[in-house]
Amino acid sequence: MTVPRGSLILVPNTLDFGIAGAAPDVQDVLPMLVIRTAARLTHWVAENAKTTRAFLKRVDAIAPLAQPLQTLSIVELPRPQKGARGAPAADLGALLAPALQGIDLGLISEAGLPAIADPGAALVQAAHAADVNVIALPGPSSLLLALAASGLNGQSFAFVGYLPVEATERSARIRELEALSRRACQTQLMIETPYRNDALLGALLAHLQPATRLSVSCGLTMPTAFTRSDSIQGWKARPTTLPADVPAVFSLLAP
Amino acid sequence: MTVPRGSLILVPNTLDFGIAGAAPDVQDVLPMLVIRTAARLTHWVAENAKTTRAFLKRVDAIAPLAQPLQTLSIVELPRPQKGARGAPAADLGALLAPALQGIDLGLISEAGLPAIADPGAALVQAAHAADVNVIALPGPSSLLLALAASGLNGQSFAFVGYLPVEATERSARIRELEALSRRACQTQLMIETPYRNDALLGALLAHLQPATRLSVSCGLTMPTAFTRSDSIQGWKARPTTLPADVPAVFSLLAP
Repeated sequence: MTVPRGSLILVPNTLDFGIAGAAPDVQDVLPMLVIRTAARLTHWVAENAKTTRAFLKRVDAIAPLAQPLQTLSIVELPRPQKGARGAPAADLGALLAPALQGIDLGLISEAGLPAIADPGAALVQAAHAADVNVIALPGPSSLLLALAASGLNGQSFAFVGYLPVEATERSARIRELEALSRRACQTQLMIETPYRNDALLGALLAHLQPATRLSVSCGLTMPTAFTRSDSIQGWKARPTTLPADVPAVFSLLAP
Repeated sequence: MTVPRGSLILVPNTLDFGIAGAAPDVQDVLPMLVIRTAARLTHWVAENAKTTRAFLKRVDAIAPLAQPLQTLSIVELPRPQKGARGAPAADLGALLAPALQGIDLGLISEAGLPAIADPGAALVQAAHAADVNVIALPGPSSLLLALAASGLNGQSFAFVGYLPVEATERSARIRELEALSRRACQTQLMIETPYRNDALLGALLAHLQPATRLSVSCGLTMPTAFTRSDSIQGWKARPTTLPADVPAVFSLLAP
């Protein structure tokens, strides 16, 4: 007899991770299907077990958990090894064991959709290789909310992650992205560690052409969220200081 | 006296547009904040007025509309003119009139987030130019759900829209995207008109290298949703026919 397999269910998290102050109610940013599914799952793979428990406490307040929080299995993803980007970690097969035994397994990151600008993709790939069904539940992505709010090209866009920190490499990368954006009429999106938000904005203003459009979205889905979208010329004419404690998404489009 | 301005609120729609059969409950795919906001808005700019009314009927069943459906103002976005890509339409300023008079204005497309792989970006840009606050509400994006479910690189990815329909141009574009993916280690995402899903799959299998990974997600957030992610070699060893009546997202990553 073969046991039917469980699925790997990608569960979106809220976007308020690490932001001080009043968090939105979880049902205001996540659909009820996500909340009900999170409440019933007994086995999790997580970017961080502690923040997963905090998330599940918020879920429990709306849809009671099927099992007490302390009895849930929450296994952390192995940290990515420096220099081993893309290389599959050795023990991902073990993480999938519950699914192979017929138990649905949740995958969750600290904010937004798992496996996007976050760890988890290698586990999803391992699931496909093991013929485990993968289900992505709908939830917020700061990248696409920022893109929608930017007014920049949403028919062609790229997310390129973080820029280099070193000044010369950073300015070269900014010029490269601007050239790429111009050639392909493609919006380029990037993120930064919050305390460096202002430094990245300064570098973008220093190295992009005056007519290039730049949009910055901060603290999306939070009450204090804002998006400013303007030409580089416009940004320079009306300087803005970005918050240093809130995640931001930067988008640029060269004419 | 100056009147405080209303905001332009980007309201996500469900992803089941045009799909026959049982649609998911709207609160299962959209957060409650979206449903409550949609219920209170009296002025809309829409990709399509008819589908917006259908959406608002689903909203009304959960959160009663502030005003009867027939009394709402729903104005359609001007159709993009061929060959005028990126050129701002003349009458976008008029569409923003309610916001300038202090009334919150909703922007909605037929599926998913407005202004992404859908019209609306020019209106968002006009809002920024007129100093109208832009708020993007969280909701599902088939592109990012497909990317998360693919197991391909979520740290660097690009959405390139539709491929050319003509066979020679299409195969050249597929090879170009594969080369780009290999060079930048960047997942490339594309979409197709549903009745051509199988033709695009055939072209990708014919022109991509055996070790390139291809993921196809169909009907995301629907009960029949599925994602298959495999190497080109694997796809050829176990052929799949794609549904011709359900939107699909195709993602590729070259090693």
